Amino acid sequence: MKHKDLNIISTSSPCEILHNDTICAISTPSGIGAIAIVRLTGEDSLEIVDKIFTPRKKGQRIKEQAHSTIQLGIINNFDEVLVSVFRAPHSFTGENIVEISCHGSQYIQQQIVQQLISNGCRLALPGEFTLRAFLNGKIDLSQAEAVADIIASKTETANRIAFQQMRGGFSTELGTLRNRMLDFISLIELELDFSEEDVEFADRNQLLLLIKEIIEHIQKLVDSFSLGNAIKNGIPVAIVGNTNTGKSTLLNRLINEERAIVSDFHGTTRDAIEEVMNIDGIIFRFIDTAGIRATEDKIEKIGISITFNKIKKASIVALVVEIFDDNSKITKEADEILKILDPQHQKLIILLNKTDLADDFEIEEKISKLKLPINKNDIIPISAKNNINIDKLISNLLNSVNNSTIGVNETIVSNLRHYEALTNALISLKRVETEIINGTSGDLLSQDIREALHFIGSITGDIFTDDILENIFKNFCIGK
Amino acid sequence: MKHKDLNIISTSSPCEILHNDTICAISTPSGIGAIAIVRLTGEDSLEIVDKIFTPRKKGQRIKEQAHSTIQLGIINNFDEVLVSVFRAPHSFTGENIVEISCHGSQYIQQQIVQQLISNGCRLALPGEFTLRAFLNGKIDLSQAEAVADIIASKTETANRIAFQQMRGGFSTELGTLRNRMLDFISLIELELDFSEEDVEFADRNQLLLLIKEIIEHIQKLVDSFSLGNAIKNGIPVAIVGNTNTGKSTLLNRLINEERAIVSDFHGTTRDAIEEVMNIDGIIFRFIDTAGIRATEDKIEKIGISITFNKIKKASIVALVVEIFDDNSKITKEADEILKILDPQHQKLIILLNKTDLADDFEIEEKISKLKLPINKNDIIPISAKNNINIDKLISNLLNSVNNSTIGVNETIVSNLRHYEALTNALISLKRVETEIINGTSGDLLSQDIREALHFIGSITGDIFTDDILENIFKNFCIGK
Repeated sequence: MKHKDLNIISTSSPCEILHNDTICAISTPSGIGAIAIVRLTGEDSLEIVDKIFTPRKKGQRIKEQAHSTIQLGIINNFDEVLVSVFRAPHSFTGENIVEISCHGSQYIQQQIVQQLISNGCRLALPGEFTLRAFLNGKIDLSQAEAVADIIASKTETANRIAFQQMRGGFSTELGTLRNRMLDFISLIELELDFSEEDVEFADRNQLLLLIKEIIEHIQKLVDSFSLGNAIKNGIPVAIVGNTNTGKSTLLNRLINEERAIVSDFHGTTRDAIEEVMNIDGIIFRFIDTAGIRATEDKIEKIGISITFNKIKKASIVALVVEIFDDNSKITKEADEILKILDPQHQKLIILLNKTDLADDFEIEEKISKLKLPINKNDIIPISAKNNINIDKLISNLLNSVNNSTIGVNETIVSNLRHYEALTNALISLKRVETEIINGTSGDLLSQDIREALHFIGSITGDIFTDDILENIFKNFCIGK
Repeated sequence: MKHKDLNIISTSSPCEILHNDTICAISTPSGIGAIAIVRLTGEDSLEIVDKIFTPRKKGQRIKEQAHSTIQLGIINNFDEVLVSVFRAPHSFTGENIVEISCHGSQYIQQQIVQQLISNGCRLALPGEFTLRAFLNGKIDLSQAEAVADIIASKTETANRIAFQQMRGGFSTELGTLRNRMLDFISLIELELDFSEEDVEFADRNQLLLLIKEIIEHIQKLVDSFSLGNAIKNGIPVAIVGNTNTGKSTLLNRLINEERAIVSDFHGTTRDAIEEVMNIDGIIFRFIDTAGIRATEDKIEKIGISITFNKIKKASIVALVVEIFDDNSKITKEADEILKILDPQHQKLIILLNKTDLADDFEIEEKISKLKLPINKNDIIPISAKNNINIDKLISNLLNSVNNSTIGVNETIVSNLRHYEALTNALISLKRVETEIINGTSGDLLSQDIREALHFIGSITGDIFTDDILENIFKNFCIGK
């Protein structure tokens, strides 16, 4: 039994930025260093480098250089370089790749690129090496995206997710799902071929079990996104509260350096200040905001409207109040914030600051009398100034992202595009589930499952458009 | 005939920072990029990488990897990398070198370095790879210095000088000089062996000719230093003058951007501002200074004392005055500057600014009546505002460094240490010249020529001390 028309191809002409020309770029970080690498990919890369390179061993042309070997020589009388050759189709891009390892002066790097260009290269677009790897079938689209993720990853966890995706772990998982759906669709479509005869090749109960299983699997992937996204992009924590309650001091305590302005008069912190901190492999983005005190000061008002925007975007809002503030005042402020929070995705914690000025009894009484619609553990007495209970606050933040549960080979979806595709696939599959239960006809089932397949296929790039490629690769570095 | 005891060796114990251990460092510029390179040198580099690397082809250990080849694999489950191997003694350092080409995330770069260190590597000191190349006899000291120069070079000319030096052009030239001096000394010392017999193997007239020739050669190298230094470090041009004459406007005109503050009230430019510009391959460092007007303003006074320091350090001082300023005023200001200038190495040019407000006759008359002890060509009427005669000013600046005369293979000394050594050699050789003329005895001649040989040898590192090495390599990047 053969799958009908399931070798899905590009829905538009081959990506417009694809050419058969040879491209080059500086692939190492910009700046001055001991070594820099300029690399080329394309049919003519060996010949082009031969035009500007003089090998140390006479007669040893790049064009004849063996795959995965290196030779020493000179580029046009201005640098001594090492040249590595990777031959098609065994290279990263599937094309002939040459890497020129030169001295890392900016003059030399630019000069080599210029000379390559004047000998027939084109400067690579961002991500064009990886794009070619994709277009030449060396990697799929989610692996290509993982290349950018692995370069951008700042923590062990982010690296682990990107590495697994780059190595094809996610693609394999999707491939399995896709094959199960293809089996499903084959049975249904076989029925359609024999529709005159009113046969039912596919046992509807078994199909229902299968589709439930697939739904469960995809749901798990969809659910992993909030963690994946937090790991990849960091968790925004807005630090808000009345002026002079010690927000900036707290931020400084957290980041252990004096970047935010701390002073004794009201309304000092006018711009939202963001500090990024890596706690146990999770990135937190702490946003210090203007106070929420009513004021006539124009500049501070701007700061305040920024505050509300930051609250809307934060995953965690830390309201800083003083331990001796009136309960009614604290409740009022908390209510104002809770009004604009989405309880599904956002959480409020209350920090009773300046406990250095209170005794244990006062603190305990304060907490017991505070009536707020939040978890008691989310009310934390601290002293930013004296570093009291800051560890408790940090534990609270970490608990909101329980990443200890990630298994070594568990797939975590960290890419918004994948999340959206999986969510869309889920909608189609849930429709299929209902349709099976309702005894809907095979052609409708087939159509909805094909839709789900389309969404799954868009992740690995079995289906793609120029727009999708452009969106993915525009954020790559040049040279990758 | 054999040279006696002329295989000069280190004057101190082998450099203290030399060990036989294996070192590693990130060799590409710091930051995020498509690719980064971590490299190792030392006896154990192959074994150490084997501990953290899993080759794609099973069983293909780094330890067995052939010289100048590359293989793909994985570093401890967090990145896919290419590993290049260069085997002793054919590598840059003469030791086993491994280069790990990884994805350019900072996390990955740091992680690889950490894992190498925990498997027995030491983090390399600045320039330690090049130091080892020197200590293992792969390059001489002036070639090692050229490696740093080539990485730092920002212009074609600077690159050309460094490249020639790195390739050993300068070393060969010094070697020839050294051999000629050794021939000389051999003859003299042969006489000393037969001193009882009062023979004269060395014809004093021929010796005199030889020594004059060597002196001329070294003098030429010494003279090239002012050009070499200018090419390497840039030519400092101080822009000075009364406040409000348009110094900042001129600087902006020259650099084509608005960095210096220009405004209509006196004393705006308080800090010295430096802008670097590459004109026809020569780097000029334009230094805008505070005005030299007498003032009671404290801050401006500090700026003014900076002005005089900048004048002392500049190669060219451009005094900006207004075309309608009194001649006596202009003369007085010029005289004040000339008083502190060293006419051998510094030059004053006078810019009569705001010519847009004058007609040709007024400008001509002004110049003809100005009596100053400088070349007429160094008095240039300009309009910084209207971009008049700025090209003439630029030609004047370029003429002060005539670099068009550098031949392709001509050696230009650009290193202060070499300049000092050559100057010292010159002093010794001039003493030898006088001694020959005066008929001084062979043993004194021999001593002075040995002194000159010592200085020449210090350039290539036939003679070195730990201090010299430390001074040279401390300014290298780590990883080179």
